[in-house]
Amino acid sequence: MNASVNRNPGDRRQADPRSEPRPEPSDDRPLAERFAGVRAATLALAEPLSEADAQVQSMPDASPAKWHLAHVTWFFETFVLERFEPGFAPFHPAYRVLYNSYYEGVGARHPRPERGLVTRPSLAEVRAWRADVDARIAALLRDPPPDAAALVELGLQHEQQHQELLLTDLLHAFSCNPLAPAYREPDAVSGRRGIGGLGVVRTAGAAGTEGAARPAGAARWLPFEGGVVEIGHALHERAGFAFDNESPRHRVFLRPYALADRPVTQREWLAFVEDGGYRDARWWQSAGLDAARTRGWEAPMHWRRGEAGWSVFTLRGEMPLEPDAPVSHLSWYEADAYARWLGAQCPDEPPPRLPLESEWEHGVALQGPAAITAGRFAEGGALRPLPAPEGEGLLQAFGDVWQWTRSDYAPYPGFRPWAGAVGEYNAKFMSGQYVLRGASCVTPRTHARLTYRNFFPPDARWQFSGLRLARDLD
Amino acid sequence: MNASVNRNPGDRRQADPRSEPRPEPSDDRPLAERFAGVRAATLALAEPLSEADAQVQSMPDASPAKWHLAHVTWFFETFVLERFEPGFAPFHPAYRVLYNSYYEGVGARHPRPERGLVTRPSLAEVRAWRADVDARIAALLRDPPPDAAALVELGLQHEQQHQELLLTDLLHAFSCNPLAPAYREPDAVSGRRGIGGLGVVRTAGAAGTEGAARPAGAARWLPFEGGVVEIGHALHERAGFAFDNESPRHRVFLRPYALADRPVTQREWLAFVEDGGYRDARWWQSAGLDAARTRGWEAPMHWRRGEAGWSVFTLRGEMPLEPDAPVSHLSWYEADAYARWLGAQCPDEPPPRLPLESEWEHGVALQGPAAITAGRFAEGGALRPLPAPEGEGLLQAFGDVWQWTRSDYAPYPGFRPWAGAVGEYNAKFMSGQYVLRGASCVTPRTHARLTYRNFFPPDARWQFSGLRLARDLD
Amino acid sequence: MNASVNRNPGDRRQADPRSEPRPEPSDDRPLAERFAGVRAATLALAEPLSEADAQVQSMPDASPAKWHLAHVTWFFETFVLERFEPGFAPFHPAYRVLYNSYYEGVGARHPRPERGLVTRPSLAEVRAWRADVDARIAALLRDPPPDAAALVELGLQHEQQHQELLLTDLLHAFSCNPLAPAYREPDAVSGRRGIGGLGVVRTAGAAGTEGAARPAGAARWLPFEGGVVEIGHALHERAGFAFDNESPRHRVFLRPYALADRPVTQREWLAFVEDGGYRDARWWQSAGLDAARTRGWEAPMHWRRGEAGWSVFTLRGEMPLEPDAPVSHLSWYEADAYARWLGAQCPDEPPPRLPLESEWEHGVALQGPAAITAGRFAEGGALRPLPAPEGEGLLQAFGDVWQWTRSDYAPYPGFRPWAGAVGEYNAKFMSGQYVLRGASCVTPRTHARLTYRNFFPPDARWQFSGLRLARDLD
Amino acid sequence: MNASVNRNPGDRRQADPRSEPRPEPSDDRPLAERFAGVRAATLALAEPLSEADAQVQSMPDASPAKWHLAHVTWFFETFVLERFEPGFAPFHPAYRVLYNSYYEGVGARHPRPERGLVTRPSLAEVRAWRADVDARIAALLRDPPPDAAALVELGLQHEQQHQELLLTDLLHAFSCNPLAPAYREPDAVSGRRGIGGLGVVRTAGAAGTEGAARPAGAARWLPFEGGVVEIGHALHERAGFAFDNESPRHRVFLRPYALADRPVTQREWLAFVEDGGYRDARWWQSAGLDAARTRGWEAPMHWRRGEAGWSVFTLRGEMPLEPDAPVSHLSWYEADAYARWLGAQCPDEPPPRLPLESEWEHGVALQGPAAITAGRFAEGGALRPLPAPEGEGLLQAFGDVWQWTRSDYAPYPGFRPWAGAVGEYNAKFMSGQYVLRGASCVTPRTHARLTYRNFFPPDARWQFSGLRLARDLD
Repeated sequence: MNASVNRNPGDRRQADPRSEPRPEPSDDRPLAERFAGVRAATLALAEPLSEADAQVQSMPDASPAKWHLAHVTWFFETFVLERFEPGFAPFHPAYRVLYNSYYEGVGARHPRPERGLVTRPSLAEVRAWRADVDARIAALLRDPPPDAAALVELGLQHEQQHQELLLTDLLHAFSCNPLAPAYREPDAVSGRRGIGGLGVVRTAGAAGTEGAARPAGAARWLPFEGGVVEIGHALHERAGFAFDNESPRHRVFLRPYALADRPVTQREWLAFVEDGGYRDARWWQSAGLDAARTRGWEAPMHWRRGEAGWSVFTLRGEMPLEPDAPVSHLSWYEADAYARWLGAQCPDEPPPRLPLESEWEHGVALQGPAAITAGRFAEGGALRPLPAPEGEGLLQAFGDVWQWTRSDYAPYPGFRPWAGAVGEYNAKFMSGQYVLRGASCVTPRTHARLTYRNFFPPDARWQFSGLRLARDLD
Repeated sequence: MNASVNRNPGDRRQADPRSEPRPEPSDDRPLAERFAGVRAATLALAEPLSEADAQVQSMPDASPAKWHLAHVTWFFETFVLERFEPGFAPFHPAYRVLYNSYYEGVGARHPRPERGLVTRPSLAEVRAWRADVDARIAALLRDPPPDAAALVELGLQHEQQHQELLLTDLLHAFSCNPLAPAYREPDAVSGRRGIGGLGVVRTAGAAGTEGAARPAGAARWLPFEGGVVEIGHALHERAGFAFDNESPRHRVFLRPYALADRPVTQREWLAFVEDGGYRDARWWQSAGLDAARTRGWEAPMHWRRGEAGWSVFTLRGEMPLEPDAPVSHLSWYEADAYARWLGAQCPDEPPPRLPLESEWEHGVALQGPAAITAGRFAEGGALRPLPAPEGEGLLQAFGDVWQWTRSDYAPYPGFRPWAGAVGEYNAKFMSGQYVLRGASCVTPRTHARLTYRNFFPPDARWQFSGLRLARDLD
Repeated sequence: MNASVNRNPGDRRQADPRSEPRPEPSDDRPLAERFAGVRAATLALAEPLSEADAQVQSMPDASPAKWHLAHVTWFFETFVLERFEPGFAPFHPAYRVLYNSYYEGVGARHPRPERGLVTRPSLAEVRAWRADVDARIAALLRDPPPDAAALVELGLQHEQQHQELLLTDLLHAFSCNPLAPAYREPDAVSGRRGIGGLGVVRTAGAAGTEGAARPAGAARWLPFEGGVVEIGHALHERAGFAFDNESPRHRVFLRPYALADRPVTQREWLAFVEDGGYRDARWWQSAGLDAARTRGWEAPMHWRRGEAGWSVFTLRGEMPLEPDAPVSHLSWYEADAYARWLGAQCPDEPPPRLPLESEWEHGVALQGPAAITAGRFAEGGALRPLPAPEGEGLLQAFGDVWQWTRSDYAPYPGFRPWAGAVGEYNAKFMSGQYVLRGASCVTPRTHARLTYRNFFPPDARWQFSGLRLARDLD
Repeated sequence: MNASVNRNPGDRRQADPRSEPRPEPSDDRPLAERFAGVRAATLALAEPLSEADAQVQSMPDASPAKWHLAHVTWFFETFVLERFEPGFAPFHPAYRVLYNSYYEGVGARHPRPERGLVTRPSLAEVRAWRADVDARIAALLRDPPPDAAALVELGLQHEQQHQELLLTDLLHAFSCNPLAPAYREPDAVSGRRGIGGLGVVRTAGAAGTEGAARPAGAARWLPFEGGVVEIGHALHERAGFAFDNESPRHRVFLRPYALADRPVTQREWLAFVEDGGYRDARWWQSAGLDAARTRGWEAPMHWRRGEAGWSVFTLRGEMPLEPDAPVSHLSWYEADAYARWLGAQCPDEPPPRLPLESEWEHGVALQGPAAITAGRFAEGGALRPLPAPEGEGLLQAFGDVWQWTRSDYAPYPGFRPWAGAVGEYNAKFMSGQYVLRGASCVTPRTHARLTYRNFFPPDARWQFSGLRLARDLD
């Protein structure tokens, strides 16, 4: 973690020969300005929610929107104000326990599955707390003590993560309502060619940021030589913010490989569904098959089978499938099974598989900054993945769906967690999870980063999680 | 079920030699007026709640307040309007499934444990539905078709049950909040004498309806001869409303027995707690001991052990124990174990036990109507049980705590459930539950009835459930 | 409990005007002789078992045969020898904990679900323990101290209960084996008439003790006047052994009622199955429907649907249904649902229902001792229920299937459990269970008794539990 | 899989410049001879077991010894005889389903958690089946068809795995018996120096194969340069048998690192226990802390706290700790937490951690064949890990405890599972598990292999699983 980041991005790029995409524009602004912006963005996301919407917790893995609003505030109060504000007194003494998520180093916590039961403080009271903390952090940032700026920077990254979670958790909560409410009003279905089974026709593009939709067709394989390559975030000055788990930068040996130029689409996934892929043991890891059988999976989360075929529940309500858009809301087990099924369809080709995270990062790094700037992200407003734009090279690395890799979430060689309670942020979850790379349609643009390591257990499906295929070249 | 009830209560009393307490005054009013009153009372109960408060479901057995508001409206729409309103169309077609509680005869239902996830319709939309149904029922009641009045009467009784549940469910939900919010502002602790362990002094009485608090001391045993007696509700005309499960009136044989003149108090219960009663296998049914151990019971639900001793969480927030007030929020297992423990303290006396429901009803019937008119009920406003008033005879039969009996909830001899889907109201729960008699401090006064059979499983503790002891006389 | 029972049965019958069936012949023998007989019978039951058969525990409710052999020995060692034998030393000190079933008063116990994991002591070692205890009890019985004889009598009754459980538990364990092993070699299917759906023909009777099989046809209703009647076991001298829960003898008021002259048959049950009875919510208690759905019940336990129709798994292996034999292995929920379904088939008749245990006992008492002497019991050797014999009156009260009643297992008025740890035998299970009356085809004949109260939870199906219908007459 | 392996081991060693330890002597023998030897060894392991011992299944992850005896036979019958034997007919048609462990490609399977319920076939019948299959395989091996020899080789490796499982499963089953039975008679505690807390003195060495016990003291760090190294099993001819998951041989990049010269000892682990390590959240992965709390872990599985301190339950009964012997029966979570705790004790040194499997393999490969020949293995007869022998270099790589690595069990780059149902052997378990390297005190010596990848979930503790530490050198 480096609080003096991004003050001179020009310099940085010279000093660091890696042509990595990085969140440039926003980082130029002063920290106080960015703080105000991120905090305001969170409130804006919660704007369409009723107090009831903000209250519910639809499963233990998800949290209420009100809790997200409060917890990110708790982070600033506990890790910044409590330490750096002269004469610190908490806004409400009970909040320290009530809104601690998982930091054992901070002490007691309210049980996670009961977050949805806390109706008081009200949403208005949580907003008042936010305003109070905002003012105090703003005061602090006028002349920040050493280390305080770095922790504010971390708090902003943390809050951006929760912005994404707020939307994915809300999507899950709304999906439990038989009335299928929409977070934002429906828009037109994204452009796509007609496909046999679905009988849909090409319509106008949907959301703002994408270009003309890419013609449907097979993905292209982009080759990479491999060898000893470097991945991970460098800890030296001016390398920009990163979580501790992205470091140290280190060497790995890669065999020659190829990456698909775009994620797997809904059209392609539908073929897997219709071929009985969810019931055929040949494609599945044993634990995945158990999960699929026990929980009755027969399509991605949020797909719904109706009399007129499949539809998908989105933040804009229930919509038809968008065949050329990336499939989303997959568990790792499903993504892994799909690759095996696809390999069996083309037995003479090198079998497709999930990429290693090192393969993903190395391949995307070669694209340069365009990989991020081309992305839609939450700011695009579609709030769902869209078809790949026209173009060459590796498309949709960021801003449509997170992409499962076959790398388990493990420490990089030489990894050291941050000191203190913030060291729990990432380091204690390094077992039983897989890494996802990229960023999704509900990730804030300035939160995306080439070296970013997102992670979830292999049965998690409520995130915007899709897949991009890889294969060996030798 | 008899819709022509109570039109001439004077007559009825002559025709029926049983001197039973019955809800007299309210029943004199026309049905339309009572309908308006009950419906308004429900809204008044929900008045102090935020939309978040009305949304939460703290356990599968409980329901959100908003759900209660909607479900009782569903009852009128489905069982009255759908059948009797010319040109009926539902307010919203999805509500028929969404707010069906358990009526298999009506068709599909939304899963009970997910009631708390339905944030839309909003509380305002549910209120609008209520207003719409109110107007249509009012129109219907101007010239009610045959049977419609009877079903409206049933709907009112049903709504009154849910008024009580709304409060007990809310108490449970608030009890899950570490901030211990209060539904209504705290008031003075009820009058009582000083007791050794607690060191409290007599203070002024609390709530409106009771007289001076009764001096603390041992309960008195009131003797009854027994023999062949009649219990249950008579089905003949003018006997007043009753649920189907209260009929037919029938004979039972009772041995001579005694009932305590008041329920067991918090002071008495504290002695059981302090004697290690919750951990001593001698007092417990095997299933009860399992429940106590598995769930960590060491006091009644809502009792909390603090540094300054025990307190109790109530609808008025956390309060000190009120030693002379009835203990509440007991499971049947605890009530049953207490009796066995108490018997071991006085081995030379006939052992105390839970009464049979027939003993309870027969004993209370001999008190006449005063048994109900003396009660506090929800209208008293204390929202918790209070000490017994001064007086002779059987006190606090109604209006402080429901009283567990040792009778399982079984059909009376000759029982026939109502025809149609409303027959599911009571008849399909006749296994695995015990009968409670009386009424509690959150029961509406006009809902109380001598023959009323409330029922819950033996491990249920979130109701205002206490106990009155009995013993044999031969 | 009265150890001086039955020494002069002639006298007793004079002194006791109730013409109850009681286990006469065996009781004439001296206690030492009966002790030897019961103990030998247990070993004989275990004779066909391999050490592996004797080891398994197929569910927490069941116990291994070896455990049964050991636990009944523990009972004699702990309750008799430890108290009455001079210079008592245990056979093995660890057995006191290892084979304590549920007596909290005796101290620690080995966890019930882990009984099947104890492979040492071996079966031979348990037999050696049995022989040792047999010799010591025999020595004691040469001049039994006061109370010792009574406890030995109790121990024999206890062992007979476990003889039955050994067989039902073994049936369950064998039913989990896809090879469908038989405890005893198959015999001929019992005689019965041809029935449409099954196409079977009348064959010769099966097991030894029954007479000619009774012609198939509707059950007959036997009427009883009711009124104030007495049930239960009298505690006075010479009334014979009974468990504490059968006392005191007391009065109950019964309305006029009728009992079916025989239990419901497999033929009759098949009609319920084929009519979709297991899936129709109208017939079921809510908790029963949940159980049926959750556990996938679609027929009685041990019924198996094959290509050639239904068969039933028995202690003699898999057999065809025996249409005229009583249906067995029903839960209370199923028995209760059947009655409701049957009532709907004949809406003009008084609806059938489960009898009260008082109705059952009163009705059977009027049959006199023949009710028991006509039974087959375990000694008959069929090891499954057989068709009703020819005859008038109330048939098959004992010795084919236990018969569910609609009475919950509650204390009789004035009930006092035995003093000491043996008071846990019956008294701590008086919640959540229903009473079954009669005795089954695996009950020892001398264990049957008019006043016997067997009890199991409403979802238990692994016992030989059937039903006899009742109905109101007024 | 390569069926022509080991015919000319001298050649092979020349052809393969890697100086890897490999199971030499046994491989020289003809396949038929080895087949007879492995099959006989399995029976010998089961020799001390009663039929009851062979029957029990103490948890779903474990299997009965009788099941192991049968399942390995099933493997030969199904994968070899069914395919290669002319006129094949199964020994018993039901066994194909009954003893299929997890091969979906073979069809239906008996549910894993119910293996312990199958008392028939008896142990004698399973032995008869073994003899029958042995004879038929022997006949086949006189002139083996193409591919049959390779599958027999696989079957032998499979059977050796189950030999180890038979013992670890039995240890678990015996550990559930309060009588603490021993599989083999106790022997002397292994030699070790006195240690403070335990007060033990050096005694004579224990089991046959080890040399003089190594003096207690800190482990030594053995340095390795790293760089691009090769690991994994080569698929070319004469490389010896390996499972599919050990291939292909491939390059990885390693940073400079060190490995401890021996596994962590019981003495060292005791310090972690006594320092409160099991309760301190700082050392644990979040999922591990959950497991430790939920399941009440406070020491390795099979450690028992008594009045005289800790003891350990072994296949030779309950024994004192052996301070210099490797700690065993650890979950991955515990091993991982220990490293973090140890690092905090010595903050100035590079923190210890679990090794990568590539680090382990590369480091051990440099030891040459001695790594295996020095091991004790099951043949040593100690049946528990023993103190490190005197010596230099990397000790106890094989034959005492399996060693957890921090590598998740994932496919090697370019991995292809075997074709057909045997491809399920390893390939469908590649999620949610960690790799263990080496071999244990109950592994057959000829089953050990440098490239062997054992794998278990991070919460598994019933194997002989310990840890060897690593650390970074740069």
